[in-house]
Amino acid sequence: MTTGTIEHALRELVLANRILAREGVIDDFGHVSVRSPADPNRYFLSRSRSPEIVDLADIMEFTLEGEAIDGQGRRPYAERALHGAIYMARRDVNAVTHHHARAVLPFTVTDVPLKPLFHMASVIGQEVPLWDSQPEFGDTNMLVDDLAKGHSLAKALGKNPTALLRGHGAVCVGASLREAVFVSIYMKENAELVLAARHLGELQYLTPGEIGQTGDMLRSQLAQSRSWEYRVARAGFRGL
Amino acid sequence: MTTGTIEHALRELVLANRILAREGVIDDFGHVSVRSPADPNRYFLSRSRSPEIVDLADIMEFTLEGEAIDGQGRRPYAERALHGAIYMARRDVNAVTHHHARAVLPFTVTDVPLKPLFHMASVIGQEVPLWDSQPEFGDTNMLVDDLAKGHSLAKALGKNPTALLRGHGAVCVGASLREAVFVSIYMKENAELVLAARHLGELQYLTPGEIGQTGDMLRSQLAQSRSWEYRVARAGFRGL
Amino acid sequence: MTTGTIEHALRELVLANRILAREGVIDDFGHVSVRSPADPNRYFLSRSRSPEIVDLADIMEFTLEGEAIDGQGRRPYAERALHGAIYMARRDVNAVTHHHARAVLPFTVTDVPLKPLFHMASVIGQEVPLWDSQPEFGDTNMLVDDLAKGHSLAKALGKNPTALLRGHGAVCVGASLREAVFVSIYMKENAELVLAARHLGELQYLTPGEIGQTGDMLRSQLAQSRSWEYRVARAGFRGL
Amino acid sequence: MTTGTIEHALRELVLANRILAREGVIDDFGHVSVRSPADPNRYFLSRSRSPEIVDLADIMEFTLEGEAIDGQGRRPYAERALHGAIYMARRDVNAVTHHHARAVLPFTVTDVPLKPLFHMASVIGQEVPLWDSQPEFGDTNMLVDDLAKGHSLAKALGKNPTALLRGHGAVCVGASLREAVFVSIYMKENAELVLAARHLGELQYLTPGEIGQTGDMLRSQLAQSRSWEYRVARAGFRGL
Repeated sequence: MTTGTIEHALRELVLANRILAREGVIDDFGHVSVRSPADPNRYFLSRSRSPEIVDLADIMEFTLEGEAIDGQGRRPYAERALHGAIYMARRDVNAVTHHHARAVLPFTVTDVPLKPLFHMASVIGQEVPLWDSQPEFGDTNMLVDDLAKGHSLAKALGKNPTALLRGHGAVCVGASLREAVFVSIYMKENAELVLAARHLGELQYLTPGEIGQTGDMLRSQLAQSRSWEYRVARAGFRGL
Repeated sequence: MTTGTIEHALRELVLANRILAREGVIDDFGHVSVRSPADPNRYFLSRSRSPEIVDLADIMEFTLEGEAIDGQGRRPYAERALHGAIYMARRDVNAVTHHHARAVLPFTVTDVPLKPLFHMASVIGQEVPLWDSQPEFGDTNMLVDDLAKGHSLAKALGKNPTALLRGHGAVCVGASLREAVFVSIYMKENAELVLAARHLGELQYLTPGEIGQTGDMLRSQLAQSRSWEYRVARAGFRGL
Repeated sequence: MTTGTIEHALRELVLANRILAREGVIDDFGHVSVRSPADPNRYFLSRSRSPEIVDLADIMEFTLEGEAIDGQGRRPYAERALHGAIYMARRDVNAVTHHHARAVLPFTVTDVPLKPLFHMASVIGQEVPLWDSQPEFGDTNMLVDDLAKGHSLAKALGKNPTALLRGHGAVCVGASLREAVFVSIYMKENAELVLAARHLGELQYLTPGEIGQTGDMLRSQLAQSRSWEYRVARAGFRGL
Repeated sequence: MTTGTIEHALRELVLANRILAREGVIDDFGHVSVRSPADPNRYFLSRSRSPEIVDLADIMEFTLEGEAIDGQGRRPYAERALHGAIYMARRDVNAVTHHHARAVLPFTVTDVPLKPLFHMASVIGQEVPLWDSQPEFGDTNMLVDDLAKGHSLAKALGKNPTALLRGHGAVCVGASLREAVFVSIYMKENAELVLAARHLGELQYLTPGEIGQTGDMLRSQLAQSRSWEYRVARAGFRGL
């Protein structure tokens, strides 16, 4: 594991922050993390700051329990427990996003399922589970601000790439940072699509077979690179 | 009370104008004021100008009755009565916005309540009262252009952070300027969310307990600073 | 009548083109004209070009019959007949816009009336008549491309500030260029609002008395200047 | 056939890529091709790259079977079969776009027809056929990634200017590149309009006669040039 690898991971994490801001997935609140390529028991996450303005100097390293390795007085996100708990539960996951994308929220407060309606959304998975803090924790400030809530959410997520949080937002995961970003964007796009299409009548969703094959294709190196290059350019970093 | 404090308040007021324009809360009409940190019986408000182009030289000082302290021939907003009346009625309020955010308007002309549907909107309060000029004042030009209407509106607002004006818009208040801006933006966001979600069926709103705890958390210094830094950057003043 | 007056009118007409493009009222097709301040039987209108890129050199002068005064080989809009016919029928009108603002179009192909739902929209008038080319002219290319169609449309417009064209768009008029621009923008805004609000149930429109008083207020010099200054800045001409 | 003609075609193809990105028709996936003006059995298409960042050096030449003439190691789009198959079937077609414009997608998964609701949309044709990969090919990765699927899609397209792909997107064709771009943009605009208007009740679509006459007018050199100049300027190439 070279220093170059870590540096690359951190630069990509800054880009991921900017991309998720540019694409309207994350606004003033929400975050994105990446598991350390040097140590699977560590992850990187910005200090408490809006993704649109996150920079290299904002990135902090944490243990999976959420302890800062070298805090330097920087204030971490209250909800970092969410990241640690998912990294503990899912060894296949190397990146996590948490967002309040507006189009996704209606599916957290109604009974309408958020299933892939077009091919690009296959990556969100066949079913998107819903986590509600109320049954287990009662009235709260709605944040996933300790490991108990983090574990509960990770359990609801199960083996899926995405989960909804009632009255709050969503989490998205991926085998790579690029994949988690891709999943987050298309979760939002699919939600917008379902909201628009439901007015027209009964919807024909993708079949499980289509979701499987299309998801595999979209997670390929070729598709991921093409999308990432586009998102980087749109976020104002053309040529990076 | 130093001159620096006033200068800081005025600079923040200019930023608040620009932010509310950038976020689509206020367009050509609408305004934002702050109570003077030097004198609770005075407030600052721009001359009659669209918030997107308000500058330091546009800010005027008023008595709560709406008299300009040093007008210099600048034309004030016709609706400044709204600000004065609220500052009279609410000693806890140090900033007021008045806007016509489009998403909020449907809730002023129908029976559908505008209640917090996601955690960020807790700050708008559990219920948003509606003020209608018609019963008390009959046909008008719809403006809150004298203290009688201002007092009537302040009475409808009561102890809430927000109120709707029928066929017109809304007022939002806060203990600080940043808080009033935050409340205004999330009132708009929540309205957009309810409009989108209602198509899907019955909605599960936040509980009163969740609204209370989440609102407290969002009004904290940490959350307010994070959001303000983001809004300032988006309004083109990165680094201020 | 000085040359300065004409020059001012032409500069404002260029701004009006850019503003209507910036505000999403007019896209690649649509236009705006102003009656000549030097001769009520003449009007100014761009050559056939999208408003977003119209410049001073594009402005042509026409007789009310649509003859170019000094064409210089420039190709005029096919639909200029619409402008001439309205100027003939309405001596109180000094500016005309024709647009296909998307939000307005649903009201041209359904039975839902487009009435002022919020105070800013009072300027569109209490009722917005619909002109349909089909009964009088049968199948056409949908353009108002001769004076016969122009007169028919002007008749449908009557004394109103706005009219709808079935499957096509709208015309808006004003006593001044600024007013016609203002009416056009708020016609679009009101249409968007009705589209959003109708999902929530029965709508409470403004009363005729409110429409009258608010419209008078909004057509005042003060309100018009404030809005124009804002629109000019947004169109990228801050300080003009 | 001069080299200049080819160069012009390639420059216009780059512009077409940028325009379709700017207008929100194509995002990270989707593409646009043009038949070679030098050889009707060849077409030009970018290498596998998002249209927003396509440049001259990305353009490749293909046989109608999808073989690269001078690949230089550049990776082609997996779905180029779609372009070749349409060029084979339609000698009148000189340009093809494939996109996932969000507004169009609801019409691919419901029974609601996508018919011209306003005059600008006449160019999409009276009926828009739907191609579904499922009956003929079963579960797939949803891509038109071989000639068998390309031929099947071309058959569904028939003599129409547009076709829908279930759970995927659309194809649009034109006698010229500019026309295919124009059709693509107005297919999206019409879809947005139908989505908005359907809430209001029964819709009055254009008559077949109106579609015919208006489509002819819009495909004229004058209308095409006016629109293209506008789209080029909006895509940031003012003056090209």
